[in-house]
Amino acid sequence: MRISILTLFPEMFDGFINTSIIARAIKQEKVTIECINIRDFTLDKHNHVDDTPFGGGRGMVMMCQPVLDALQSVRTSDSKVYLLAAAGETFNQKKARSFVNVKHLILICGHYEGLDARIYDEVDGLISIGDYILTGGELASMIIADAVIRLLEGVIVEESHLDESFENGLLEYPHYTKPVEYNGKKVPDVLLSGHHENIRKYRLKESLRNTYINRPDLLSNREYTKEEYKLLDEIKDEIKSKGE
Amino acid sequence: MRISILTLFPEMFDGFINTSIIARAIKQEKVTIECINIRDFTLDKHNHVDDTPFGGGRGMVMMCQPVLDALQSVRTSDSKVYLLAAAGETFNQKKARSFVNVKHLILICGHYEGLDARIYDEVDGLISIGDYILTGGELASMIIADAVIRLLEGVIVEESHLDESFENGLLEYPHYTKPVEYNGKKVPDVLLSGHHENIRKYRLKESLRNTYINRPDLLSNREYTKEEYKLLDEIKDEIKSKGE
Repeated sequence: MRISILTLFPEMFDGFINTSIIARAIKQEKVTIECINIRDFTLDKHNHVDDTPFGGGRGMVMMCQPVLDALQSVRTSDSKVYLLAAAGETFNQKKARSFVNVKHLILICGHYEGLDARIYDEVDGLISIGDYILTGGELASMIIADAVIRLLEGVIVEESHLDESFENGLLEYPHYTKPVEYNGKKVPDVLLSGHHENIRKYRLKESLRNTYINRPDLLSNREYTKEEYKLLDEIKDEIKSKGE
Repeated sequence: MRISILTLFPEMFDGFINTSIIARAIKQEKVTIECINIRDFTLDKHNHVDDTPFGGGRGMVMMCQPVLDALQSVRTSDSKVYLLAAAGETFNQKKARSFVNVKHLILICGHYEGLDARIYDEVDGLISIGDYILTGGELASMIIADAVIRLLEGVIVEESHLDESFENGLLEYPHYTKPVEYNGKKVPDVLLSGHHENIRKYRLKESLRNTYINRPDLLSNREYTKEEYKLLDEIKDEIKSKGE
């Protein structure tokens, strides 16, 4: 996969590209990441990329010309172009999976008050990573690149994905490692029992409990197995008797 | 505000800390950001921070001791401690505003399969920035720091916040800047009219339209003004007649 990021701040990406799993994925040629500096495409001698908004208001708006010329310089028939914007479709794990087979992903980072809306017509879509406002699209594009790259074949051991939050519609179960006791707090006995079936059941139940307590919205459209139904009933009973 | 970030990869934060609005906020002493390397708190000679999970399974789990000792080294009675985790409460603009008055924000970045669940008991909360999985909590903690820092007094011109997405429960209206015509596409006439009341109305209507089309979920619990009701009806009629 090739990822091209159009930005005014390419230096912001150094840490992301040179660290941990992403650095290894680049070294193993699973992905190439290039940052295109939008400012390199300005035509005036002061390298302006923004101007005041028509209709008035505070802040500056990024102009069509440098952004679209930067886009033109990397776009091919294999490219999918997305613009990071609070008004976009909310990114999630399903969307991350849908990007895995894109050959060339282009991410455009806005800055200042936003981009000239005519740029919107030239992209495949607008994406938001959540309901909050950031100083620019740079961190958001790293989030998307990170979520997609770790799903590329061979980047992370495949089995690692199976039990993750959201992959089966539930949040993760809790993890424990050594020591068995830390500051008086013990690892649950079942995890020390070596009884695989009980461990599986415990983990499924704790996944359901985490989700039921913290993100009940994830459960509303979920199809349950018989076992999950039974465990969820147990959880509700446990919470009820705790409250009494 | 002071922000302490507990991480295995402090070098990932260089670009974030040294760029644009965040760099300026640090220079103007609106905020201090420090990265604490969790690995500095390991006690064994190989500096291990993780170990295999009890109960089996792929991947490694971050151990209590180095994480909690790193936390202990910076925590004061002024600290609020949050752990970045997919299973956490979803971050949003309201949550960002609620962090503005925190004197000392501590963000703990997980990595690998996750953290030993006993660490959860020592923090004020778990936060997720969205329904997707990342290689670690580093980018997520930058997102939270970015969203909060830009709300600190004096970091960004106050008026800039008023028209932003989510601040009034709606997505933003479209922005336009020079030139009036670009590749055959013109700026809407109303924005060139100089008629302030018409411009205000146009922008409110387009905010409503953006939200109605892209994020109808934001509208479901919203209280409307009479004007907004009328504009929303117009939008629905326009969409309907377009569809016919």
